[in-house]
Amino acid sequence: MITRRGLMLVLSSPSGAGKTSISRRLLEQEDDLSLSISVTTRPRRPGEVHGRDYLFVDATEFQLMVNRGELLEHAKVFGNYYGTPRGPVEEALASGQDVLFDIDWQGTQQLEANASRDLVSVFILPPSTRELERRLRSRAQDSDEVVAQRMAKAADEISHYPEYQYILLNDDMTASVDRVRAILHAERIKRERLVGLPDFVRGLQDGSGD
Amino acid sequence: MITRRGLMLVLSSPSGAGKTSISRRLLEQEDDLSLSISVTTRPRRPGEVHGRDYLFVDATEFQLMVNRGELLEHAKVFGNYYGTPRGPVEEALASGQDVLFDIDWQGTQQLEANASRDLVSVFILPPSTRELERRLRSRAQDSDEVVAQRMAKAADEISHYPEYQYILLNDDMTASVDRVRAILHAERIKRERLVGLPDFVRGLQDGSGD
Repeated sequence: MITRRGLMLVLSSPSGAGKTSISRRLLEQEDDLSLSISVTTRPRRPGEVHGRDYLFVDATEFQLMVNRGELLEHAKVFGNYYGTPRGPVEEALASGQDVLFDIDWQGTQQLEANASRDLVSVFILPPSTRELERRLRSRAQDSDEVVAQRMAKAADEISHYPEYQYILLNDDMTASVDRVRAILHAERIKRERLVGLPDFVRGLQDGSGD
Repeated sequence: MITRRGLMLVLSSPSGAGKTSISRRLLEQEDDLSLSISVTTRPRRPGEVHGRDYLFVDATEFQLMVNRGELLEHAKVFGNYYGTPRGPVEEALASGQDVLFDIDWQGTQQLEANASRDLVSVFILPPSTRELERRLRSRAQDSDEVVAQRMAKAADEISHYPEYQYILLNDDMTASVDRVRAILHAERIKRERLVGLPDFVRGLQDGSGD
């Protein structure tokens, strides 16, 4: 074993491209990977657990976290604040654990600015416009107008694909999960992440590592 | 499907670390991957086939290939010349096929200088000095002196690990082959290799891709 630093795996996609399903299966299948828990000012919904689904804080506390630099990224969505606490992520990475982020392109840009060394970013694309529309429609009984708005939003989100390192065409869920796992397994043995490598090689060269 | 450019997968290791076995299994298990055929001035041995094992040429022809810039890398080993013809590699990459290179750190440095965009480099390490010595001994009934020379050469080769992108500790052959396949599958969907991506995304955004 060579000691390694963990990585931050970011999955982004327009809604309807399958990101949430891929994330869930990935967490089931992979050890050493956990989902980043966001902090938010939005009210807790029935069934949600503080510390599991979110860290629920009030607006004052959120602002304090921002001011103290305790958030790796944050954004306002529909009047509520959301952010990623730095502490738990740093702890995980330092102990060789990987962290999964289900965030949009704005969050990814902030992570890129604050933690690019540890970042592995994947953008998930739907296989076709028709399939994207089918998925957006099947979600609920929405009016054509609402679906059209979502399609326009998806087209806008898709325009941010050039900011990502890997591009995954999700035309088959099982294959897509395998592909993200391949990215994870490959990135884990990138030389820069193997912090124990110089010691290990010294042991190999002088025979002291046996 | 998004059209992609092929990649050059380089595996290097000190002898005895398992590179040749990993390469052979990889070629068996992976479509769209073929071994680069080297050109050499060394005499053909019984059973070797021109165009399959090597391209056998004389010293004059080899020098002409060097002068014309037809080799991606070349080196002199024990009085014979070896090199990688550029043409077949370029053709493979342009048609979305990957090429495997079983070369040392000197060849890798030249590929890095001539084709870094397409290069994916993996350095394979033995799990321990003891295991490396065991593997070097089991190869033949060599004297202690010969084994000691090989161990010294291996230590020297290992010192080049910082020139590689991925580091693979080969303590289990099946796991190692899986790990190299993960690298291959991940690198294939790196954004820069997906040359058909801008067209594909345009089709998604305006609905013309269906």
